[in-house]
Amino acid sequence: MKRITLLLVGVGTLVGVVVFTATTSRPVTVQDAPIFLTQIPAGYREWRFISVAHEEGNLNSFGSILGNDVAIKAYREGTLPFPDGAIIAALHYRFIPSAENNKAFGRDQSFVAGAPTNVQFMVKDSKKYAATGGWGFGHFNNDEKKVDDAFMKTCFPCHQKIKERDLVFTVYAP
Amino acid sequence: MKRITLLLVGVGTLVGVVVFTATTSRPVTVQDAPIFLTQIPAGYREWRFISVAHEEGNLNSFGSILGNDVAIKAYREGTLPFPDGAIIAALHYRFIPSAENNKAFGRDQSFVAGAPTNVQFMVKDSKKYAATGGWGFGHFNNDEKKVDDAFMKTCFPCHQKIKERDLVFTVYAP
Repeated sequence: MKRITLLLVGVGTLVGVVVFTATTSRPVTVQDAPIFLTQIPAGYREWRFISVAHEEGNLNSFGSILGNDVAIKAYREGTLPFPDGAIIAALHYRFIPSAENNKAFGRDQSFVAGAPTNVQFMVKDSKKYAATGGWGFGHFNNDEKKVDDAFMKTCFPCHQKIKERDLVFTVYAP
Repeated sequence: MKRITLLLVGVGTLVGVVVFTATTSRPVTVQDAPIFLTQIPAGYREWRFISVAHEEGNLNSFGSILGNDVAIKAYREGTLPFPDGAIIAALHYRFIPSAENNKAFGRDQSFVAGAPTNVQFMVKDSKKYAATGGWGFGHFNNDEKKVDDAFMKTCFPCHQKIKERDLVFTVYAP
């Protein structure tokens, strides 16, 4: 199964390269490799906790941000920029009221994680992702619907707004 | 330092027993041991993520619920009641708007974890905590201000409202 997936990605990349070389005269370089994550980093659900986040409005999301060992170490030691190998995962769920909790408290005040919506990643690789500040961005919907390139191209410009923390908005919660 | 702490706890328990035996004729049994946690379980900040929670109103808290290996395994396998050794931690922070995030999004919609307020625990030990459904409850304020027994006695009656999930409100977020 893994082999088939890798093959499909391989074919996809190849098609991309062919189309690209057919419409430009620029030689194919490493810049033409996908700059966004095509695979979910393995084992992210086992990673340690960084912080929580809630977005109102259209997103209406409830997020938990986790980090792999490299990311957690960098956060705790205040290492900036984050070293290569650091990966930060944002697990997003619907933000929903909890009828059970509200009943226990005797008033409407509780919100919990609803259905999972997507998982986003930032992978630090200063060479591979040099064009986007050393970070590779990934977005994987729970319904497996893929986001398009136009959507993915919005990640870097927004994260650039927090250059002083190496493009990472989330602050470590002690 | 650890030895001193243990000694102090020992002296405290001894004083409690002396006062108790002086005012009643009932023999001292295991029931007279503290039914609430007196020590923060070691290493809880390294545990894996269970879910997130937000309480409005007076609490205005932003919580992340973590579990030790026994708790995570039970959650994932749907084991009820939770086996002895399971520990669930609720890390609470202030629920605050994020000026940084709002600026990046171009509108007020982001909330993040503010200052830590307290950490609560549920420790499963069906013998030690038989009187409170097999769970020992703990509450540790970030400012080290101790909560009194009257406060701690509110844990069990409220958690009893969710008997069908072994007194645990938090549902695992996949």
